[in-house]
This record gives sequence, structure tokens and C-alpha cells, in this order.
Amino acid sequence: MDIATIIGLVMGTGLLLWAIMGKADLSAFADGGSVAIVLGGAASAVLVAFPLKNVLGMMKVLKKTLLTKSQDPNALIADMVKYAEVARRDGILALENVTGDITDPFLVSGIQMAVDGTDPDLIENIMMSDLDAVEARHADGKSIMESIGRYAPAFGMIGTLVGLVIMLGNMEDPSSIGPAMAVALLTTMYGAVVANLVALPLADKLAIRSREEVFIKMIIIKAVMAIQSGDNPRIVEQKLKTFLPVGMRGSDDESARAA
Amino acid sequence: MDIATIIGLVMGTGLLLWAIMGKADLSAFADGGSVAIVLGGAASAVLVAFPLKNVLGMMKVLKKTLLTKSQDPNALIADMVKYAEVARRDGILALENVTGDITDPFLVSGIQMAVDGTDPDLIENIMMSDLDAVEARHADGKSIMESIGRYAPAFGMIGTLVGLVIMLGNMEDPSSIGPAMAVALLTTMYGAVVANLVALPLADKLAIRSREEVFIKMIIIKAVMAIQSGDNPRIVEQKLKTFLPVGMRGSDDESARAA
Amino acid sequence: MDIATIIGLVMGTGLLLWAIMGKADLSAFADGGSVAIVLGGAASAVLVAFPLKNVLGMMKVLKKTLLTKSQDPNALIADMVKYAEVARRDGILALENVTGDITDPFLVSGIQMAVDGTDPDLIENIMMSDLDAVEARHADGKSIMESIGRYAPAFGMIGTLVGLVIMLGNMEDPSSIGPAMAVALLTTMYGAVVANLVALPLADKLAIRSREEVFIKMIIIKAVMAIQSGDNPRIVEQKLKTFLPVGMRGSDDESARAA
Amino acid sequence: MDIATIIGLVMGTGLLLWAIMGKADLSAFADGGSVAIVLGGAASAVLVAFPLKNVLGMMKVLKKTLLTKSQDPNALIADMVKYAEVARRDGILALENVTGDITDPFLVSGIQMAVDGTDPDLIENIMMSDLDAVEARHADGKSIMESIGRYAPAFGMIGTLVGLVIMLGNMEDPSSIGPAMAVALLTTMYGAVVANLVALPLADKLAIRSREEVFIKMIIIKAVMAIQSGDNPRIVEQKLKTFLPVGMRGSDDESARAA
Amino acid sequence: MDIATIIGLVMGTGLLLWAIMGKADLSAFADGGSVAIVLGGAASAVLVAFPLKNVLGMMKVLKKTLLTKSQDPNALIADMVKYAEVARRDGILALENVTGDITDPFLVSGIQMAVDGTDPDLIENIMMSDLDAVEARHADGKSIMESIGRYAPAFGMIGTLVGLVIMLGNMEDPSSIGPAMAVALLTTMYGAVVANLVALPLADKLAIRSREEVFIKMIIIKAVMAIQSGDNPRIVEQKLKTFLPVGMRGSDDESARAA
Repeated sequence: MDIATIIGLVMGTGLLLWAIMGKADLSAFADGGSVAIVLGGAASAVLVAFPLKNVLGMMKVLKKTLLTKSQDPNALIADMVKYAEVARRDGILALENVTGDITDPFLVSGIQMAVDGTDPDLIENIMMSDLDAVEARHADGKSIMESIGRYAPAFGMIGTLVGLVIMLGNMEDPSSIGPAMAVALLTTMYGAVVANLVALPLADKLAIRSREEVFIKMIIIKAVMAIQSGDNPRIVEQKLKTFLPVGMRGSDDESARAA
Repeated sequence: MDIATIIGLVMGTGLLLWAIMGKADLSAFADGGSVAIVLGGAASAVLVAFPLKNVLGMMKVLKKTLLTKSQDPNALIADMVKYAEVARRDGILALENVTGDITDPFLVSGIQMAVDGTDPDLIENIMMSDLDAVEARHADGKSIMESIGRYAPAFGMIGTLVGLVIMLGNMEDPSSIGPAMAVALLTTMYGAVVANLVALPLADKLAIRSREEVFIKMIIIKAVMAIQSGDNPRIVEQKLKTFLPVGMRGSDDESARAA
Repeated sequence: MDIATIIGLVMGTGLLLWAIMGKADLSAFADGGSVAIVLGGAASAVLVAFPLKNVLGMMKVLKKTLLTKSQDPNALIADMVKYAEVARRDGILALENVTGDITDPFLVSGIQMAVDGTDPDLIENIMMSDLDAVEARHADGKSIMESIGRYAPAFGMIGTLVGLVIMLGNMEDPSSIGPAMAVALLTTMYGAVVANLVALPLADKLAIRSREEVFIKMIIIKAVMAIQSGDNPRIVEQKLKTFLPVGMRGSDDESARAA
Repeated sequence: MDIATIIGLVMGTGLLLWAIMGKADLSAFADGGSVAIVLGGAASAVLVAFPLKNVLGMMKVLKKTLLTKSQDPNALIADMVKYAEVARRDGILALENVTGDITDPFLVSGIQMAVDGTDPDLIENIMMSDLDAVEARHADGKSIMESIGRYAPAFGMIGTLVGLVIMLGNMEDPSSIGPAMAVALLTTMYGAVVANLVALPLADKLAIRSREEVFIKMIIIKAVMAIQSGDNPRIVEQKLKTFLPVGMRGSDDESARAA
Repeated sequence: MDIATIIGLVMGTGLLLWAIMGKADLSAFADGGSVAIVLGGAASAVLVAFPLKNVLGMMKVLKKTLLTKSQDPNALIADMVKYAEVARRDGILALENVTGDITDPFLVSGIQMAVDGTDPDLIENIMMSDLDAVEARHADGKSIMESIGRYAPAFGMIGTLVGLVIMLGNMEDPSSIGPAMAVALLTTMYGAVVANLVALPLADKLAIRSREEVFIKMIIIKAVMAIQSGDNPRIVEQKLKTFLPVGMRGSDDESARAA
């Protein structure tokens, strides 16, 4: 789970509750109809804008991206070097015994193709095309989040306009004007909170998580290609480590450089 | 028909009607003149911005894109492999008997050129130039939708300003100020609804549908080129499947990889 | 003349007049000073932003682009094939008799260079550089229109602020507040109309027309190069037709493909 | 001096003064504190955003760009052809006598390097790197102007908010509300004028002038390279003229083409 | 320390204090709750948007970027030439004695790899990958600053809406309306100040400082590669100086050109 996301959401919500409850009753800010217009309106616009499949896929992307811990590239490279050693020592078919321990299906499918003796170009093509599909799914998730961030405030404004038009048509009782306008403004406020505390920041986080995952998958592709071609484990390590900036390289680094 | 589009439009409209009717008479929100300014104004701006031909074409693109079911790439690839088998077994001229069953004119014209013995480079050039034209037509449709999404709120604001100027010039009767302002705000509300529930989301959907159609047409072009060059049906399948991400590949996949 | 532009401008203006005159006297919306601030202010900003030469050139681009009918690529290709036949039959010098009938100076200059025996690379360089200049002129025209679309609302807002400051400084007579505010809002309304009915849509139309003209000129360049190199007229036609999408190709098309 | 810039600035300022003085006393619009907030605030933000060196450099770029007349490419090419003739006739060292007459230091340094027998690749590298530096300086100037155009309205709004908060805290005397609000609105108006009459249009003009200067310097680089390699003056002219669109070429043009 | 940043921040803050204190008591503008909503809200959104690691890294980037003086490329080149002389005269291993004096770890690690006899391609790969990581870190810092500049005004608006809703629900006492609205507006003002005086300008400065640092590191990479390949010190100087525009080159320049 991404800890910063939870801290941010809890802290932002807490702040707003604290700001409201210090000066007024929370019930003045709770209005089911206003919530329905903002969330329902944004959901309607998103359904018009995206295929059902993508909207449902977004939930999965969101869940997976936020609940999964990001992988450590150094540990991954260490594993890859281990597989390269197995392949070198016992032949590439020996890797089949290893794949049972791996949980990442992307890596399993890559090693399986190498074990099956699939043509290297075809392996790379297939893995790159899978990677492209992952990126496209993430980009769709980001687009949908950004759309919520755009449509929630828009329907907030529409809700406020509806409230104002109703209020302006019923001004016989002056004492009702204030509260009516207060309710009208609630949708604008809900729209702003949904967009700025939830949807837009989550869109950014999805993008960053996607970048990390693509980075990891690029290392896996390079590793599978190197293992398949029977590279010396040291060379495999060296090749993969050039992906990492100095600060992220492990302790074997100096020797790798001098190799 | 794209089911999400209908759900979204019905749900969004229902929500707004429910929000209005819970608190006021719907007639307070129905104003023919306001509708005319927002829709007519946006239509005027779109006519100034785009050639008549493109505006009419947009209707067709919109209808076709929203009413046509997206094609299944797996079924398409299976068909292509079948045609490759026919061409291999009975010669490329035998494909002429098949084209009668095909409904996609893009595919028919590609196979026809292959049957006619047209030069491969020329086939690819012509098909790519047709594909470019399809993409351009979709991009035009998207631009027009986006323009409606930009001009509808603008004319909504213009309508509100017109109403405000009229109201401010006639303030003798204080009791008329509220209702006059309510009517003035209606155009802003209509503009926001047209843009955020209809035009901008439809522009996004057009773009996604266009991407899907281009993807399908790219597979068709690769398939026609492979069939024309007399490729082995297995090779044709393998080539085309690399376009698909793992999750979309059919059951023949494993064997294809091991081939 | 571009018919959609006229329809759009007339329809939009008519709509606004109708909306105003249904409820108020048109004179309440006619204010010379407000027009001066919006149009004069936008013109001032455009002069600061662009060299005088470009602003004057924009008028010409606008007039030419909107009043000239777009050329039919099929008719153009038919002409080019005719010239290729003349050049093939009677030698390239015979083309000199033809240039008198051509009205497009770009085409005349291209054929003239071919007749003069100018080096092919130089012909292409010169024609491409002329094409670049045409594109740059169109892009300048579009930029200026977009600037008007940005500065007219800005000066509309400035005019409204000036009016509000004056009104707020003279509130002794409450009955004058409404009319003063009405006048103040007029500049905002003018700015929005100028931007959204005229300037921004015209900028879009200029861009589309520019794309069409560049497309025509690209065909001309390819045609001149093919004629100059003495290509067979059939080959010239085939080469040029690959520029056109299926829907735009003429009746000779099928045979061309089978050639 | 760029005449359009002056016309625009004088015309825009005049219009605003005329609009104000027709209806109110100019003194109601003159408020030193408001000017200080808008200009001082924008200047502060620009200093936070850019290194001092760039801000000072911007003044120089602005002055040079606006006060210098743009160079005529035809005259420049004529000069270059003259130098090519000198170099051809009397040897490249003879060019040293010419450089005293040239005022453009970029051209002088280029010819000097050619005279010194510097390696052609090094000449081109050095001149391109100088050109890049000029472009970077212009781009910095444009960025700073755009920042002023963004921060001036922002500090205008901040000033108005400060004024409103003060006014709302002192509402005992109703007659003071109007004037206080008038003063509060002044900063918003100043910010809009600074941005839309001065900063944003000047940013555009800087960009256009930069494009012109880069164009001239590209011709100079090509010319120096051609002279250095001992090209025939006719060839030099021909090479350089292909940079110019038809409308800008001089009378020697036809013969150059037929050469 | 970047002097312009301090001047800008002090000047902008001073201006605002002066503008407030001239007309009102500063205490009317100090409201802890408002500060908490704007800063706390923006911080919450940033935590949702970015991983904790990046947010903490941003502080370090900000501190390092603003407190470190930018390096002088001429001095750097002079040092590089000195190292090239050492390597030429005493062999590349002699450079090991020099690295103790160097403070830039990027340069030290580059020279160390050269001394260790690491393969040149690997040296370049590793240094480029380190440079990419530095750029990515800077870009993250800029993104976070821009996010603060976007979310601070958003939470300012949310705070104002909360205040307005509370005020509109309690309008029994007319005299409390003004002060309540004043307090409500404070969050909008704080949000605008945080965004326009601090966050957005700092994002720009980070980008400029990043460009400078990348420029310096590019020179270092070229220098290490040249030293490693045993280039003549004069050649090293010449190669590196072509990076610098004329105005930044030192006095040895003329001779370098004539070399």
C-alpha cells in the first residue's frame, strides 16, 4: 500500500472536518443530493467519455497500483543474475524449475518463452507488446482520473447554478435566501474537494507508479534477452546496473565497474 | 451501439431532472430562447470554424462510431489466417470468391488489390493513405466536438450577460430582479451541461474509438501484405498476434509462441 | 467564398439580435465607446505583438483564404496528367505554350523552371521553400486571429473594470447604479462575442484552409518533379492518386490500381 | 525601432485614458499603492523565478530587439556575394580588409575565422553554438515577459483581495463601501492592462523578432561556409536565395534559376 | 545561495505587509486556521500525488539548488585542461592524486572510472545514466512545486467556500456578515500568495538551475571521455569551449580558434 496516499487523504479530510466543525455544525455541510449531483454527474460524463471496459479496468489499475508495493530494482537484478547463473551452469532448460517460485507473470512468461526456445526477436516483440499494453492501461486509468478531476468541478458548478436559479425564483421569504445559497454552494465545494484532494492527485500518482512499473519491466526484458543469449552472469549484472543511477546501485557496484 | 454512452447520457440527464424536480417546477428551467442561444450560438461558431463538409461528415462519424460495435481483433486474425490458407492452397486468385462474404470495404479493397496483382508497395501506400484519411476524418470529428464543448459555455456566458444587461436596465420593479436573473443564469447552465455531459465526453469517446479502428486497420494492412507475399498461415498468425497483448490473445497462443 | 463562414456569422449575429430585441431595445446594447475599447484594445495589443507587415498580411490571407474556393485535387491531377502527356509527346519545352492557361502562379513557376532546364534538386528546393513561406504566412494569420480571440475578452474585462470603478465612485444616486453596471458589462459581452463568434472560429478555419492549400501544393510539387523527369503519364497519375483517400479518387481509379 | 510596438502602446494607452476621462476624473484611477503591488509583486515573482543575470539580460534583449531594425535578407545576400567575389578574386585573406566595414559582430567573427584558416567544421560548430546562445537568450527574454504577463494579474487579484478584506472589516460607514471597493478593483485592472497591453504582446513580438534574427544568422553561417570553401559567387547566391520565398527574392532571381 | 530568490521573496512579502499595514491592522490578515487549510490542504494533495520519497527528495533538491552557487563553466574547463595535462604527462593513473582535491562527486566518480581502466562505453553509459537520474530528480522537484502552485489556490477556494457556507447559514446578525466574509476571503488570498510568490516562481527557478547543472555535467562527461582517450590538452580545451557561447569564453579563445 502506498503510505503517502493514505496520509494525504486522511490529513486532507481531517483538515476540512476540523475547519468546518470549529465554526459550524457538520450537518450544514452534509447534503446527499449535492453529493449525488457531483459524483453522479462526473460518473455520467466519464461513462460517455470512456468505454465501460476501460472504466472497470481503471478500478483494477487503481487498486493494484495503490495496494502493491513498488519492486526494488536491486533485488530484481540480483534475482536475474541468479537465473543467469542457473542457465549458464545447468542449461537454459533448468530455468523451468525456477519459474514456480516467481510471482510476476510477466517474468514467468518471458522465461518460459526462453526455455521453449522461442526466437529471440519474437520474445522481445511479444514482451514489448505486453509492456505497451500495460502502459496503455495505466494511461487510460490516468485519463479517467483526470476526467473525474475535470467533470466533478463542472457538475459542482452546474449544481450551484441549479440551486441559484431555484433560489432566485423564490425570493418572497428573504430569510430563506442565505441558507438556500449556502446549499447551492455546497456542490461547488464538493466538486473542488473531489478534484483537488482525490482525482487529480491520484492521476499524478498513477502516472508515477506506471513509470516505476515500466522501468522494472524494461529491466526484466533486458534480463530475459541476456539470459536467453547465454551471457555471462557478470555481464548480465553490468548491463542491468547501467539502468540504475549511482545512488540506487548496491555494494557490488565498484567491482562491477572495474570488471 | 456503445452501451456506456447511453448509460452516461441517461444517468446524467436523469440526475439533473431529479435534482431540479425535487425542489422546483421543471418549467422554471425550460426556456426555448436560452436553448436557442446556447445551441444556435455554438452551431454558428462551429460553422465559422469548420467547412460545411466537415460538419456534415462529423454527424456520420459520430453515428458510425457510436452505433457500430468495435471489432474483435482475435476474430479478425482468425479470418485473416483462413484467407492466408485459401491463398496458399488454391492460389491468390481464389480469394476473389471470399471477398463477397466480407463486409468491411477496407479489407475488400485490400484483398482485391492483392488478387489483381497490384505491386505490394503500391497496395501498402494506398491502404496507408486510406487509413490516414480515416484518422483525419475522426480527428476532424473530435475537433468539432471539442469546439462545441468550448463554444457552448461561451455562448452560455454571452446569453447570461445579455440577460444581466437587460435586467440591470429595468430595475424599477424589485420583485422582477430575482426571476430575471434566474432566467439569465439558465444559458450559463445549459452551456455547462452541453459541454460537460455531451460534447467534451463524446470528443473523448470518438478519440478512443478512432484508436481502436486504426488498430484494427493496421492489423488488416499487415495481414493483406503477408497474404500477398504468400506467407505460411502460421507465420501470418504469429506476425499478427504480436500486435495483441497477452490478455487479448486466444487459446492458440502458446503453440504459436513455441512454433 | 466559404459558404459555412457566412452562414455561421449571419446566423450567430441574427440569434443575438433576436435574443436582445425580444426583450429590450437594441439601443441599450449599442455603445460606441465600449466597441472602441474592445476592438481598439485588441488591435493595440495585436500591433504590440506582431510586426505591422504581418498584421497587414493577415488581412490578405484572410480575404484570400475565405473568398477563394478550395481546389479539387482530382481536377488538378487530371490537369497534371495532361501536362505530362504534352511533355512526353512534344518534349518538355512544349509546356511553355500551356503555362499561359494556368492561373496558379505556384504551378506556373514550377513548370517554367522545368522548361528552363533548372536542376531538379534546385526546383524542389525552391518550391518547398515557397511552400514553407505560404505555410508560415498562414500560421501568422492564425496566430493573429487567436491573439484577437485572447485580447478582445481581456479588454472587455478591462472595460468592465473601468466602468465598475467609475460606478462605485459615484453611488450617491442609487437609481443610476443599475444602468451604469449594465453599460459596464457591455464590454465583457462584446469581447466574448468578438472572440467566440469571429476571431477564434476564423483562426480554426484558416488552419483548415491552410492544410488544404498545402495538400494541393504538395501534389503540384510531386507532379512537376514527375513531369520534369519525363515519367509516363500513367505513372504520374498513379503516383499522385496515392495522395488521395479512396472516397476522393475518380473513376479511373480501378484501372490505375490494376496497372 | 519597431513602429507597430509604439503605435500599439500609444493607441492602447490613449484609448484607456479616453474611456476613463470621458466619464470620470483620471485621479480616481491613479493609485500609487496599487501600482506598487502589481508591478512590485510581479517583479518579486520574476526575481524568485529567474536568476538576476537573466532578468538584467532581458532588458538588453528587449531594448536591442525593439530598437534595432530587422535586417533585409536580400541586402545581406548581396553583401555575401560581394565577399565571395573578393575571396575568389584576391584570395580569402583579402577579406580581412572588408571586415572593418561590417557592423554585425557575428559576421565579423565568422569571416575572421575563415581568414585565419580555422577548420571548417570548427567554424560551423562555433557559429552554431553562438546562434544557440542567442536563441536561448531570446527564449529567456520571452519567458520572463510571459511570467510578468502571468504574475501581474495574479498580484492584481491579490491586491483586490487585500482591499476587499480591509473593506469588509470596516463596514460601519456604508458610504465608504463603494469607493473602497473601487480602489480594491484598481489592482485587478492594472494587472490586466500590464499583462494584455504590455507583457504578453511583447513576449510574442520578442519571439517573432528572434525568429527573424535566427533566420538572418542561418544565412550568414551558410554564406561563411560557402565563402570559406571557395564557392563560385553565383553558386553562393543561388544557395542562399533558396532560403527566401519567391516574394522576397530580388530581380536577379530569374537568371539565378536558369543558371 | 541564489540572491535573486531572496530579494524576490523579501521584496514581495514586504510589499504585501506594507500594502496591508498602510490601511489596516495586520492582525485582520493573520488567521491560523486559514493558513492550515491552504498549506495543509496543498500538502495533503501533494502526498496523494507523489510518493513520500519524492516529496522528501524535493526538500533536498530545493535546498541544494537554491543554496549552491552555480559553477563557472570557464573555471571548470580550465580544471579539465589541467587534468588532461596531468594525464598526458604522467599517465592516467597520476590522476588518482588529483581526485582528492575535487569536491564534485560526479566528476570524482568519472575520473576514478577512467583511472580504473573501465571500458569507455561503459563509463559514458554510467555517467549518462547518473545524469538522467539527476534530471529526473530535478523534474520531480519541479512537478511537486507546480502541484503546490496548483493545489494551494484550490484549497484557498475550498476554504472560502466553507467560510461562505457557514456565513450564509448564520445571517441573523447583519453586522457579522462583513467580517465573516473577510475571513472567508483570507484563504483565497493565502492560496494566491503561496502559488504566485513562492511555489510557481520556485518551480521555474528549479528548472533553470537544473538546466545549468545538466550543462555543467555534460561538459564533465565530454571532458572525462576526452581525458580517458588521451587527447591533447589543447584539443580538450577546444572541444569543451565549443559548448560555450562567445560571451562566456575566456581570453584564450582567439588562439584556440586559430589553432
